[in-house]
Amino acid sequence: MIVQKYGGSSVATPEMIRAIAEKIKKRVEEGEKLIVVVSAMGKTTNNLIDLANQVSSDPLPRELDMLLATGEQTSAALLSMSLNDLGVQAVSYNAFQLGMITTGTFCNARIVDIDMKKVERELNQRDVIVVTGFQGITPEGEITTLGRGGSDTSAVAIAAKAGARCEIYSDVAGIYTCDPKICPNAQKLDYVTYNEVLELSSMGAKVLHSRAVEIAKKYNVELYCASTFSDERGTLVVGTLPEWLEQPVVTGVTSDPNQRKVTISPMPGGIQAMSALFTALADKGINVDMISTVNDNGHSYLTFTVVEGKGPVVRSTVEEVMASYDGWRVTEDDKVAKVSAVGVGMESAPGVAARFFSALCREQIRMYGTSTSEIKISTLVAKTDANRAVRALVHEFGLTEVEN
Amino acid sequence: MIVQKYGGSSVATPEMIRAIAEKIKKRVEEGEKLIVVVSAMGKTTNNLIDLANQVSSDPLPRELDMLLATGEQTSAALLSMSLNDLGVQAVSYNAFQLGMITTGTFCNARIVDIDMKKVERELNQRDVIVVTGFQGITPEGEITTLGRGGSDTSAVAIAAKAGARCEIYSDVAGIYTCDPKICPNAQKLDYVTYNEVLELSSMGAKVLHSRAVEIAKKYNVELYCASTFSDERGTLVVGTLPEWLEQPVVTGVTSDPNQRKVTISPMPGGIQAMSALFTALADKGINVDMISTVNDNGHSYLTFTVVEGKGPVVRSTVEEVMASYDGWRVTEDDKVAKVSAVGVGMESAPGVAARFFSALCREQIRMYGTSTSEIKISTLVAKTDANRAVRALVHEFGLTEVEN
Repeated sequence: MIVQKYGGSSVATPEMIRAIAEKIKKRVEEGEKLIVVVSAMGKTTNNLIDLANQVSSDPLPRELDMLLATGEQTSAALLSMSLNDLGVQAVSYNAFQLGMITTGTFCNARIVDIDMKKVERELNQRDVIVVTGFQGITPEGEITTLGRGGSDTSAVAIAAKAGARCEIYSDVAGIYTCDPKICPNAQKLDYVTYNEVLELSSMGAKVLHSRAVEIAKKYNVELYCASTFSDERGTLVVGTLPEWLEQPVVTGVTSDPNQRKVTISPMPGGIQAMSALFTALADKGINVDMISTVNDNGHSYLTFTVVEGKGPVVRSTVEEVMASYDGWRVTEDDKVAKVSAVGVGMESAPGVAARFFSALCREQIRMYGTSTSEIKISTLVAKTDANRAVRALVHEFGLTEVEN
Repeated sequence: MIVQKYGGSSVATPEMIRAIAEKIKKRVEEGEKLIVVVSAMGKTTNNLIDLANQVSSDPLPRELDMLLATGEQTSAALLSMSLNDLGVQAVSYNAFQLGMITTGTFCNARIVDIDMKKVERELNQRDVIVVTGFQGITPEGEITTLGRGGSDTSAVAIAAKAGARCEIYSDVAGIYTCDPKICPNAQKLDYVTYNEVLELSSMGAKVLHSRAVEIAKKYNVELYCASTFSDERGTLVVGTLPEWLEQPVVTGVTSDPNQRKVTISPMPGGIQAMSALFTALADKGINVDMISTVNDNGHSYLTFTVVEGKGPVVRSTVEEVMASYDGWRVTEDDKVAKVSAVGVGMESAPGVAARFFSALCREQIRMYGTSTSEIKISTLVAKTDANRAVRALVHEFGLTEVEN
């Protein structure tokens, strides 16, 4: 049993849907049974959100989910029709029919359970079931959606439950050492680990929805990312790299321009104030990143980054929490980008940080703060320096295609 | 409690949806609780069918219903958002959530039951529930649709269950004595009976889906048809006309150009062959109308009409059933239209048929076959004569607006 997922750009037109049906038919003829998860066609979800904004200044999340869930139902029904037209025994199901139970957080629900009995019963009778991605229902029968990229999550969750391999098809041919738009000779990876992809996708590489990778990691689902309309070999995401593979120190380099640096100087109140501040930010659902503190001559300074667009909320939260303290000042800077190198090989290879800093130094790129994990080094640079920094790191760690 | 239904042309744009929300808000402010049934926006259903035909040469009815049901879910969610935006407590539900149970005949299902407990529970908590028209689910959880015009049926079925009045809003201001496109001075009726509307709508007047009227008649649901975007008085459809109202002999005149006359001459095999033929046609879901037989000198001739487009199926069915007989010949004519006069007053007024025939005779319109019921006279005329025939009958029976 195989789970396949086709993204919105892969099912954007009737012609594409027919081409996918042909692709699936070949697999069925090879003797496979498939669960195919689809996203909404092309820009459908955005168009529906536009419609919502035209009838309401602040659409209720509950009704927004009711609206958005139609997108995947449309593409699932069309793909099933197209498969049947080719003589493939297929049937489409929405989240309601399949018992894709989620939490009740509209627009950002989490999958709680899937009724695999129905899936298995259906696959005993036919070769393909087409399932609406991105959506679920609460135990009370309310329609929910899983948030952007949620169809990846639907597919991996089903694969986890079914103990199946999961193939994610999109308009990208796999996972690259860096964004080919920045480095045209970026290398496509044959293998990459869950942990690396988690670092890569949370940093804006957008290769796979990170919740999907978390589930894949937790249940050890073999994930294969490839292009929908080419037979080019894609990337396999696994728990550990095959032993025969020479482990690269750095697997990928990314940059994320969607950053806002917040600095409080001096930062009074010690650990209590800092704890209160990060708790308040977390309560408002704001992810804080790149935290660094400096103590200088009895004064402490606090710097952290948040995603751009969260500026006003962060400022008001800071002012609220810090109201009882005096003498502090908050400044913001959105002219920064985060550049990171990721690799499971880092753990066992000393000197990666030195090479990282030297590479940027040689290019005379200024760094505004650094943070590291076992498999990642990130630094803030000026937005205008970001692409140059990525190319310097790609060169340093030998991540380009080998030229013949 | 009031049930309202808004047709596709009334919810075609976000502006229209907002205008309907305003209209509903006024009724809520007058202290009413409403169940609002909506169709899909504008041409949505046709566009979805086009999509289906682009991915499949013969879309499976089961998948077609899965596809089409998204149309009403979209408009229901949007109307609910818009109502909430105006401060009206509203929530949308699809057929699944509301337990709108139907038979399993995809694309043409019939409503079997509606879970009114949920409707009542919801209306205790808020003022409006918006319900997807046109769709249902089978007891097994398969999505069905009720066929063209099915949203009327949904609305009337809910009204019947709730013991509520049902208001059907569309781009037509009510029910007219004849099509205003044919007779610009056609009169809008204040009252009309279920039986008259049944004769009118089955004859192509398209004022109300006939299944909806059948349910209204069966459960004595007060039906009010009016324009969505005007306060002009509409038409009330009732069981019996108010006593104070002077009963007109003829209430309305219609023409239906969607007719194909089939003649078998001579018709061998007597009653057995005829019975076998009509049974075979019924098995294929073909409605036969205007049956007439003539016996002439030992030979019998059979004429009947079917809706246009059914020609090929009818011809093959005739050839199949009549294969064992010799000497017959089948001819078809699609250049005919059916012109009818309808009125409950006919039952008690003799001489209506005479007036009907005289009016057409005066205009030198040739008739190709006639059939009558207690409240209807129909005749086939040349398509090119149909509008002239309608105007002659409207004039004869005084169905125009009284000129001041």
